[in-house]
Amino acid sequence: MIQKFFKLQISTNGQKLYEFTNQTLDWIKENKFKNGLINISIQHTSASLIVQENADPDVQNDLINYFDKLVPMDNRLYAHITEGKDDMPAHIKSSLTNNQISLSIKDKNLLLGTWQGLYLFEHRLENQKRTIIHHFIGE
Amino acid sequence: MIQKFFKLQISTNGQKLYEFTNQTLDWIKENKFKNGLINISIQHTSASLIVQENADPDVQNDLINYFDKLVPMDNRLYAHITEGKDDMPAHIKSSLTNNQISLSIKDKNLLLGTWQGLYLFEHRLENQKRTIIHHFIGE
Amino acid sequence: MIQKFFKLQISTNGQKLYEFTNQTLDWIKENKFKNGLINISIQHTSASLIVQENADPDVQNDLINYFDKLVPMDNRLYAHITEGKDDMPAHIKSSLTNNQISLSIKDKNLLLGTWQGLYLFEHRLENQKRTIIHHFIGE
Repeated sequence: MIQKFFKLQISTNGQKLYEFTNQTLDWIKENKFKNGLINISIQHTSASLIVQENADPDVQNDLINYFDKLVPMDNRLYAHITEGKDDMPAHIKSSLTNNQISLSIKDKNLLLGTWQGLYLFEHRLENQKRTIIHHFIGE
Repeated sequence: MIQKFFKLQISTNGQKLYEFTNQTLDWIKENKFKNGLINISIQHTSASLIVQENADPDVQNDLINYFDKLVPMDNRLYAHITEGKDDMPAHIKSSLTNNQISLSIKDKNLLLGTWQGLYLFEHRLENQKRTIIHHFIGE
Repeated sequence: MIQKFFKLQISTNGQKLYEFTNQTLDWIKENKFKNGLINISIQHTSASLIVQENADPDVQNDLINYFDKLVPMDNRLYAHITEGKDDMPAHIKSSLTNNQISLSIKDKNLLLGTWQGLYLFEHRLENQKRTIIHHFIGE
């Protein structure tokens, strides 16, 4: 059994989905991981991780719009407003999605479905630097 | 340390919760897993996994109804509509729940609470074949 | 590779966030875990786990209020009402957040972001005893 870590940093410019499937796949390939778990965790509470369809870009826009309606940027709704109208909604959106995803690797393949991609879901409006930890345990 | 994989396939016929706790328990028993992690991941983005109460079937119906109201099947709300009125809501419901769950096994027992069951949450209206990967790492 | 388990019990008195980051950190330190995964799972379906900001307490109140509006305690909306007006909303809130979180440990440090804390999110109104399993796998 071995363990390896990889810190992926992504610069974001606004509320969008940022795909990082390829960076994860490259890391698996470089390290010749055969079978094991990858735990992927985001080190922030105003951005999150999701596994979503990577075929039609409309899906991503619909997701962003949906979450924006579900969690309105309206300071009258929240007490925590000092960091901007997008901050408390960002924390809520983060709670509604994921901070962390564990994925399986079998025979050197990351077990994702045909249409599944890995995304950072940025919930803040201004530019951010986001850290996503990859942690492999296996062989 | 050993690793084992098991691909569970479930045929679904509409928006429902499909319990698979017994299939998971059977696989653990057959393989005599003692202590370890099971990572369970669904290979689709329009169905999801949840751990929920398995005592009162009303809970399942209430969950389905709640999610249907929260994410309306109304094509006017979405840009991604080519795959049917239920498709984009299915992607959103999948984001609001889980693609993946990790569970612990201790002394041959899957550590679930008394009332917890494992469910596939189907969000599409038409018949589907769903693949749920089970991956054990432990001893 | 070693595995260890730890059952954390938290008494709750109403809908609140209960931080347990320190209990998790103490357990890691006592056991001198170096590198590995911790799987944390709650054994209930009417309370959940979240990773959230631990700086401004307003964030926690805003979260509780948001989820209360999103999932109203109104018996007319649900069929499962025998356990109280807060019970079915609790199951739904649990589905919208997490039953389980996997975290990574590297060089004896739990990899959480600067502002991230671990919380039990209690969704029931009356006093409860909640069990949160910690399971370490690593070295």
